Amino acid sequence: MSNRAHNFNAGPAVLPLPVLEELRDNTVVLGTSGMSILEISHRSKQFEEIIQSAEARLRKLLSVPADYGVIFLQGGASLQFSMIPMNLMTVSKKADYIHTGHWAASAIKEAAKVGTVREVGSTKAENFARIPRENELTFDGDADYVHLTSNNTIEGTEWLCSEPPVGKVPLVCDASSDFLSRPVDVTKYGVIYAGAQKNAGPSGVTMIIIRKDLLERSPKNLPTMLNYNTHVQNASLYNTPPCGAIYVVELVCKWLENLGGLAGMEKLNIEKAQLLYDAIDGSNGYYKNPIPKDCRSRMNVVWRLASEELEAKFLKEASALKMVGLKGHRSVGGCRASIYNACPKESIQALVALMKDFQKANG
Amino acid sequence: MSNRAHNFNAGPAVLPLPVLEELRDNTVVLGTSGMSILEISHRSKQFEEIIQSAEARLRKLLSVPADYGVIFLQGGASLQFSMIPMNLMTVSKKADYIHTGHWAASAIKEAAKVGTVREVGSTKAENFARIPRENELTFDGDADYVHLTSNNTIEGTEWLCSEPPVGKVPLVCDASSDFLSRPVDVTKYGVIYAGAQKNAGPSGVTMIIIRKDLLERSPKNLPTMLNYNTHVQNASLYNTPPCGAIYVVELVCKWLENLGGLAGMEKLNIEKAQLLYDAIDGSNGYYKNPIPKDCRSRMNVVWRLASEELEAKFLKEASALKMVGLKGHRSVGGCRASIYNACPKESIQALVALMKDFQKANG
Repeated sequence: MSNRAHNFNAGPAVLPLPVLEELRDNTVVLGTSGMSILEISHRSKQFEEIIQSAEARLRKLLSVPADYGVIFLQGGASLQFSMIPMNLMTVSKKADYIHTGHWAASAIKEAAKVGTVREVGSTKAENFARIPRENELTFDGDADYVHLTSNNTIEGTEWLCSEPPVGKVPLVCDASSDFLSRPVDVTKYGVIYAGAQKNAGPSGVTMIIIRKDLLERSPKNLPTMLNYNTHVQNASLYNTPPCGAIYVVELVCKWLENLGGLAGMEKLNIEKAQLLYDAIDGSNGYYKNPIPKDCRSRMNVVWRLASEELEAKFLKEASALKMVGLKGHRSVGGCRASIYNACPKESIQALVALMKDFQKANG
Repeated sequence: MSNRAHNFNAGPAVLPLPVLEELRDNTVVLGTSGMSILEISHRSKQFEEIIQSAEARLRKLLSVPADYGVIFLQGGASLQFSMIPMNLMTVSKKADYIHTGHWAASAIKEAAKVGTVREVGSTKAENFARIPRENELTFDGDADYVHLTSNNTIEGTEWLCSEPPVGKVPLVCDASSDFLSRPVDVTKYGVIYAGAQKNAGPSGVTMIIIRKDLLERSPKNLPTMLNYNTHVQNASLYNTPPCGAIYVVELVCKWLENLGGLAGMEKLNIEKAQLLYDAIDGSNGYYKNPIPKDCRSRMNVVWRLASEELEAKFLKEASALKMVGLKGHRSVGGCRASIYNACPKESIQALVALMKDFQKANG
């Protein structure tokens, strides 16, 4: 372990050590196949077992009902920003987007190329330092869907209250940065999508959970690769999938099961986040986090110090202690610790210790 | 080596053993980073070095001129089948597609959703058992581009003669299955694209080489992720790329340099293919390959036996000798050996030995 850093990267992010070790041990030869995990055919029995197991484990972890498809695509959430409206904004050609930050803005920008987007519950005037309250949300009952971003990596907020009251309009969720970090009632959603590289695996694979009745909305003349039907009908094997990345997702799911599934994972994530927020709140304002407690992200914890000079000094000391990825996003500055599922409690304890020492020395 | 199979998979395919070993050694901790290759940020200095080196090595191997962009995307050649016409079939909205088999047909199908496709030089009437001759090709000087598939994995043909006389119309090439297997004069092409999983790396990354003046054709309202400009302008870092797959491409390029670059690789590939074609041609018709010698693929060698029963028996014996992936594509049947760059000569020698033994025992 001693040659491993404390990895607070926002994504690609830390992966569970047992997952990396199992991957390493199958990199030259996978089991008895005589081939690397990267060399087996996507049409082989070995890979079919891997992708089917990955899907089955995801379904079990999230209790995904049978009337939802679960698929593995490429292109990241950024491609989903377009695939969602291309496939779903096809009835009234209108959609409501809850605007909670940087990535919601990207989703809105792409959807506006396809149809009419209405921004709902924007907290832009407050620098997105909170999630909108229910009484700030009014939805268009005629919209093709409502889109929300469940965790805002850059702003450090997370949708921890209950889902917004969208009625019969399907709720579409970009869950990229808190996917698999806690139980979710999938039945409340029409679509959940997530890039793997925060909690679920490496970059290069994106998971989509979609209620099957919504598949009827996709226009027939869509590019085949951009039509969800293609991938649901072919169980993610229409073309060559990112086999290695899907293999790691399967290993991560197995690791989550051993931790007690998503309920067990959530308990740990609450503990880990609490450690860090307690350090911030107990610093007499030396470290400042602007987010109300009920929407503070358990995944991405942001804080500021009194000056940019002090922040730079803090980051330099963290770096010397092999703490990686603590610089806030360039658009907002400050500090950020991304403490996804696989971030060990020990890394957070080390960070909290540094925060206390630093305040003592520079208070 | 003894636990490694003879891997004749069509893709994902065999990778060079030294590449797999270097990948394995960096799977838990990459160099002195304290993180796995899968855990480093795509915005980190470490990853920037990797992706810049991958691009530089590709440029050097293929002598790519400065007025071409080289980018790494997701979605495979199948997504390029749509991105090519979405970005380039935007002037006359017409394109000529040379129809040489299964994958050319897929490219044609997607392009026809975007504009007017004219099939050129189709060898369909002959089951695509050859590449069209130059006198069978007439091009529309007003077409936005001419599209060809340089190697046909399923049919076992390869475009080994000089490029077709397209005049000033840009030539677009799906080089997925012979990319990096031999030197190519990039200046003769407008675009070359290739999924990595045959010769260049694992599945999950696709390389595109594009002449920069063609970037002006992309409509402004394209989805951001589907616009080549996005990725050229951002050096493939607009969103999180498939970091692990790009790392392996970088290692494969390094391995190719050590073999003497693409000229060295071509020499080896000619030798390897010759071994197998000689075995077929020297079998007195026991093994049959229908392709004329000047367009026999060096990458995918196909052959038939006298009956399907005999083929099944051959494949079973091959399997017992740890030879993997020799079954022909389900659409055509028979046998096929994919002998890409990383397929060792020893594997082909073992296959040839089996072919001789089998003929003796079942002749």
